[in-house]
Amino acid sequence: MPIITIAARALPVEKKRELVRKITDLCCEAYGLPPETITVLIQEYPHENIGVAGRLIADREAPPP
Amino acid sequence: MPIITIAARALPVEKKRELVRKITDLCCEAYGLPPETITVLIQEYPHENIGVAGRLIADREAPPP
Amino acid sequence: MPIITIAARALPVEKKRELVRKITDLCCEAYGLPPETITVLIQEYPHENIGVAGRLIADREAPPP
Amino acid sequence: MPIITIAARALPVEKKRELVRKITDLCCEAYGLPPETITVLIQEYPHENIGVAGRLIADREAPPP
Amino acid sequence: MPIITIAARALPVEKKRELVRKITDLCCEAYGLPPETITVLIQEYPHENIGVAGRLIADREAPPP
Amino acid sequence: MPIITIAARALPVEKKRELVRKITDLCCEAYGLPPETITVLIQEYPHENIGVAGRLIADREAPPP
Repeated sequence: MPIITIAARALPVEKKRELVRKITDLCCEAYGLPPETITVLIQEYPHENIGVAGRLIADREAPPP
Repeated sequence: MPIITIAARALPVEKKRELVRKITDLCCEAYGLPPETITVLIQEYPHENIGVAGRLIADREAPPP
Repeated sequence: MPIITIAARALPVEKKRELVRKITDLCCEAYGLPPETITVLIQEYPHENIGVAGRLIADREAPPP
Repeated sequence: MPIITIAARALPVEKKRELVRKITDLCCEAYGLPPETITVLIQEYPHENIGVAGRLIADREAPPP
Repeated sequence: MPIITIAARALPVEKKRELVRKITDLCCEAYGLPPETITVLIQEYPHENIGVAGRLIADREAPPP
Repeated sequence: MPIITIAARALPVEKKRELVRKITDLCCEAYGLPPETITVLIQEYPHENIGVAGRLIADREAPPP
């Protein structure tokens, strides 16, 4: 029943596969529950939809004119 | 003012329309509030962004090589 | 695997029980999935933690001095 | 460390840039924290994924046949 | 219809009142919508439920023995 | 900047401390980012606020009369 939501920039599928497997293992151990009860949701945000320190991530890479 | 967020895989628009209508009705009744105060948000995740039991949903359908 | 999150003010347990049952039924039907795969999370906010139209719900009931 | 999530319809990048900057300023002031600790996430929903008053936003603009 | 969720540590009610008012104003302007359509939800986490850089906030203040 | 939210029942502080540390490590590795950029939020729900398979968790332990 634990739900783990990861909100971040995009990730290759291999990384997502590994992250889901490892986070599920950790949560099984922490909550003492079988893996079937654990759900992981990965939210991938475009760089222009994440702001850190008042600036879009997109602008850190290519500043607005 | 109740906000209902549904996180799952994609759904055809007819199903979304019906789900929004019916969930709104239920919440009006439960909270004793008019429908204008109810918001429903539907989050549709790609199959490679949902993990259940430590595996991506995408891999259940077509296992990684 | 659908996760339904309800964010609103507090609700008596009887209402929560009924809401969980009925929303689960609706989602089973919409997604074509068995009830075991559906999780409902109810977030209950104090009235001073919800703002509508720029005002705390708490202040609508008892305006600040 | 405050995380501000904005869930709404799509917004042009200029508006997102400005909103992130101004909301970060407000949160710095409210929490007494430096801007580096503030993260803003913007979730943009298609009109057929938002329901208000029991109807999809998409149907308010172009009603279903 | 925009929903703004703020997840952070606790805040005095005066700060919450002001933050809700100001964030609602910003969102009205950004989305071109009237204030009645804007909802702000404030989630207040205990210090032992927030981790930054791998450590609980609670432990930064009073390290575990 | 990745934000990991864990929604589940309550957990002792020792378990939370360990979970935050280990999940942060995993996310550093997956995203190639330093630990200072990772935030973990733990949401603890009372058993009467979680529904699985249409029933409150609270009722599974002590069924309603």
